[in-house]
Amino acid sequence: MNTHVDFQDLDVGFDVPALPGMDEADIQTPCLVLDLDALERNVKKMGDFAKAAGMRHRSHGKMHKSVDVQKLQESLGGACGVCCQKVSEAEVFARGGIKDILVSNQVTQPTKIKRLANLPRLGARTICCVDDLANVAALSAGAVAAGTKIECLVEIDCGAGRCGVTTTPQVVEIAKAIDAAENLTFSGIQAYQGAMQHLDSYEDRKGKTQIAIDMVVDAVEALKAEGLECDIVGGGGTGSYYFESASNVFNELQCGSYAFMDADYGRILDKDGKRIDDGEWENALFILTSVMSHAKADKAIVDAGLKAQSVDSGLPTVFGRDDVDYVKCSDEHGVVMDPTGALKVNDRLRLVPGHCDPTCNVHDWYVGVRGGKVETLWPVSARGKAY
Amino acid sequence: MNTHVDFQDLDVGFDVPALPGMDEADIQTPCLVLDLDALERNVKKMGDFAKAAGMRHRSHGKMHKSVDVQKLQESLGGACGVCCQKVSEAEVFARGGIKDILVSNQVTQPTKIKRLANLPRLGARTICCVDDLANVAALSAGAVAAGTKIECLVEIDCGAGRCGVTTTPQVVEIAKAIDAAENLTFSGIQAYQGAMQHLDSYEDRKGKTQIAIDMVVDAVEALKAEGLECDIVGGGGTGSYYFESASNVFNELQCGSYAFMDADYGRILDKDGKRIDDGEWENALFILTSVMSHAKADKAIVDAGLKAQSVDSGLPTVFGRDDVDYVKCSDEHGVVMDPTGALKVNDRLRLVPGHCDPTCNVHDWYVGVRGGKVETLWPVSARGKAY
Repeated sequence: MNTHVDFQDLDVGFDVPALPGMDEADIQTPCLVLDLDALERNVKKMGDFAKAAGMRHRSHGKMHKSVDVQKLQESLGGACGVCCQKVSEAEVFARGGIKDILVSNQVTQPTKIKRLANLPRLGARTICCVDDLANVAALSAGAVAAGTKIECLVEIDCGAGRCGVTTTPQVVEIAKAIDAAENLTFSGIQAYQGAMQHLDSYEDRKGKTQIAIDMVVDAVEALKAEGLECDIVGGGGTGSYYFESASNVFNELQCGSYAFMDADYGRILDKDGKRIDDGEWENALFILTSVMSHAKADKAIVDAGLKAQSVDSGLPTVFGRDDVDYVKCSDEHGVVMDPTGALKVNDRLRLVPGHCDPTCNVHDWYVGVRGGKVETLWPVSARGKAY
Repeated sequence: MNTHVDFQDLDVGFDVPALPGMDEADIQTPCLVLDLDALERNVKKMGDFAKAAGMRHRSHGKMHKSVDVQKLQESLGGACGVCCQKVSEAEVFARGGIKDILVSNQVTQPTKIKRLANLPRLGARTICCVDDLANVAALSAGAVAAGTKIECLVEIDCGAGRCGVTTTPQVVEIAKAIDAAENLTFSGIQAYQGAMQHLDSYEDRKGKTQIAIDMVVDAVEALKAEGLECDIVGGGGTGSYYFESASNVFNELQCGSYAFMDADYGRILDKDGKRIDDGEWENALFILTSVMSHAKADKAIVDAGLKAQSVDSGLPTVFGRDDVDYVKCSDEHGVVMDPTGALKVNDRLRLVPGHCDPTCNVHDWYVGVRGGKVETLWPVSARGKAY
């Protein structure tokens, strides 16, 4: 039996970058490739860490937007459920069978509140964040209208400077309003310090996280004094999860990037001053790209430009090669300096994206590879679900 | 009869940001909004310009990736066909009924050559660019295998530093190879100077374009001496189309951004030193965003972050407002400074994206509005078609 899989066997209209069973060399580029061995090791490692620390891990689905990756994080990594940032993402995860969903963000538009309130009908525990009293009333009315229950976390802005209240009295006031509201349940606190995750220095991250921990401890104690217990005290990312885990107040981690890694996260340093992509986490996500032109002797033009990635956190790096360098990115092209002329047309490179989250969000598929073969094709199920 | 359209009339699962007939105020955000009046005026203006200048205009579909916008450019703007950058985009346009398609890029991977060679079967004139002799042979073999004809342009790198050859002898050598190859037709020259379109100064752009024009004149004359006529001499963008039109050598323009505009292009200056978004072209494309949190008095957090746009060319600007300023962008959030507290939760803003092309590429839909109502919903038909 011939088990060779090749696009050449088929006719016209190849709307996927690869087919399971195919050799890596036959993948159409540019596309996202997942090294499944590395991904599984990352997922298991974080799961083992959380278990040993006595923490739940609610893996952040906003990063991968994939029901398949989330299921791996739950089955292999013991994740208790998913976080995501938009109601439209939550719908995708709920339809995909994920049973415990936190929209770690504010839900304020009338249509979105209606959609959120419908999520429990899909069988999912439904949790969202609140930082505004008027929003409590709107969420309650939505849940009553739908005949469902929504759990609410009060969001504390512990340094990121985005959503969230900044004082304990505000936390208590909103928590009491949630507790008193029909069809809402007060379930705890959301305190994710997003702004310091990418600080290079371990000690700098530790200092910023300690400020967040102090705010959370203060709020949890004040809530306790009002008879309000926190089922969830959630936060922590790839640059800080060990701090929240040692805090004695957080009980849920919300890490995302650890599973895939990217060039920007890779540069931050661990407690020994070592890059975290040098031992702590493996690069599992790559943009596979091909040389499409080499008309200039020292320059290869590759097919991954701005439509194949986000460069908000810097350009991609070329994985496993010191001899070539990705130096420029335009809409459809990348310029790779190739001073020794090592590359030729149709040669492939694995790029480590600068920033994984918005890079995944431009692609429709993950091509899962193992041992030089395409093993699986996973849809980026919640791609573009920004509303 | 009640003609009011509202998401509240429906039940669960709103996978589109809007419905035709809906009030603008009910659109789910973040999403792309097209001001249809402004779009039509831009499209007609460029069409009128090209006609008066005796040029064809092959509108660049890589910008909008929309069959509907392309059809408007052909019907209202007289465009002769489409340019795009990827075979997967070309397939979308061909399936959508576009009959004249230039892939203004190199096509080198075996699967992609097979797909390109199949495009004429969908009824489309099929043209691509070449800068490599070996690629001529591969394209010819692909066209022979498919029993179709591919037209080829030799690409000149006239300053962008990406694909393309840089000397007239190389142009002639490749053109002769195309002319001699089975099932290929030599159709002319591609000479788009992408690197200078965004230079602020009109005179700087003029100088750079003149270098390109001189290279093209030299190549066209050398080809003529070999008996090779150029049916197409293509190039020109939103920052240079008037130069190519006055060159007496180019005959096809390839403008994209003029139709939608963006903040980065808007800043370049016309011959009178005036911004081109102040009279030459109108902003027709917006990211509609909503305030989702205003827990800090001087700061509104909006729902359009990195997953709703590309910030490679700078942050978006807030359209029609001087009192608020979009100052920071993270994955899911934008921070809008609101020193006077003018905004409240659920208020909406129209953002002019920093760079239209990669911003359109993260969205699934264009919401076309006119007179405060949603008139149409157009799919971003070739979104994500990067391979």
